[in-house]
Amino acid sequence: MITDLKPGERLDDLQIKGYEIIQKPGTFCFGMDAVLLSSFASVREGEAALDLGTGTGILPILLEAKNEGSRYAGLEIQEESADMARRSILHNGLEDKIDIVTGDIREAAGLFGAASFHVITTNPPYMIGDHGLKNDKEALYIARHEALVSLEDILRESAKILRPKGRFYMVHRPFRLPEIFAKMCSFKIEPKRMRLVYPYVDKEPNMVLIEGLKDGRPRMQAEPPLIVYEKSGEYTEELRSLYGV
Amino acid sequence: MITDLKPGERLDDLQIKGYEIIQKPGTFCFGMDAVLLSSFASVREGEAALDLGTGTGILPILLEAKNEGSRYAGLEIQEESADMARRSILHNGLEDKIDIVTGDIREAAGLFGAASFHVITTNPPYMIGDHGLKNDKEALYIARHEALVSLEDILRESAKILRPKGRFYMVHRPFRLPEIFAKMCSFKIEPKRMRLVYPYVDKEPNMVLIEGLKDGRPRMQAEPPLIVYEKSGEYTEELRSLYGV
Repeated sequence: MITDLKPGERLDDLQIKGYEIIQKPGTFCFGMDAVLLSSFASVREGEAALDLGTGTGILPILLEAKNEGSRYAGLEIQEESADMARRSILHNGLEDKIDIVTGDIREAAGLFGAASFHVITTNPPYMIGDHGLKNDKEALYIARHEALVSLEDILRESAKILRPKGRFYMVHRPFRLPEIFAKMCSFKIEPKRMRLVYPYVDKEPNMVLIEGLKDGRPRMQAEPPLIVYEKSGEYTEELRSLYGV
Repeated sequence: MITDLKPGERLDDLQIKGYEIIQKPGTFCFGMDAVLLSSFASVREGEAALDLGTGTGILPILLEAKNEGSRYAGLEIQEESADMARRSILHNGLEDKIDIVTGDIREAAGLFGAASFHVITTNPPYMIGDHGLKNDKEALYIARHEALVSLEDILRESAKILRPKGRFYMVHRPFRLPEIFAKMCSFKIEPKRMRLVYPYVDKEPNMVLIEGLKDGRPRMQAEPPLIVYEKSGEYTEELRSLYGV
């Protein structure tokens, strides 16, 4: 299928099922965090999955490619990236499986209804607080800083939207782990699985993958380290397999 | 110095400053967790450090060997191990630096006074709850299960005993990390540093080292992975240096 691109956009191969995604270098491009989260999360046959803050739709598209869920949705507040997500979904012929909604995460439970999804994924803004929007890169700023949505907003809405024993998957920065765990516990999304991502075997982790269980009992599985690069600077074998290369 | 040992006891070399420790195989022997905690923690010149649940006194002895603190104390509820700790301290000539108190962690703030220590260390029982004391190995059971003291007790007393901006160091199991962080936050001992200990580079972590700061601000440093064994089964270089071999 030939898809018309807007100025500054390009079409990138996702290395799975022939899927491609529309991106806009410098503004809307997915990162390794999205790829790692898409492999860490799982959506079982018949389940519905919602991605909060979906950007250009990378998570729903990769989750659809890797899982047997019945339907996928993505919520995005920025119309430009939501529009790119919808065009990528059409381009891949996934319009019957994936629905992109433009809207505010802080009102997500009102938009989708209580107990409406088995699975929630989110790759939220990592940085705390809002130091005023920078006009030149406003879209990027919103995606990275808690300007429009906080961790507390995401957990509060997720706790409402998840079905009983529903699963919550998030990628975040390790420096916020105490706050993440404390808030997950207070919203009764019990942390059940955690994996730290270390760029090199001797370096600090720069990402953490977390699975929570709505109304779960305490006891978390900490997983083996996910190491990104060999000392040579090449991807490790695990990373290559996650990227399908 | 020649020290008389009781039946079943032996004297082990600590590989530092010529210090030795009295242990009793099968009942009171320190593990790798104590060694790792003693290197993760730091006691600065002039500071006083208290070890909660000190067993045979391994933590105060190793901390004294590695730091410039002014005084060290250990609290232990089991008289037999407290007695071994006191004899080890005499054996090493450390009676002016280290004080062992027999008593209950649940009453620690009453015993030592509020804001009385700059540093607290603890290698507490890891297992949740108390399933009834096993008579044949009661001493070991008390050291490993929360039969006599809970994580909440330890944090509550530590929050009282620590001076403002005092530091709390603990080794624990990763499966309890969400509860640990949530409770530390609730007692205002903010997690500031964390290191996961992986037996092998491709295995789940089995220990976590944590530093908290009394009344600290949120933001935690996650450290590089601490890997114990090479694939060959030998200690890694870092582990060998921590053990002084």
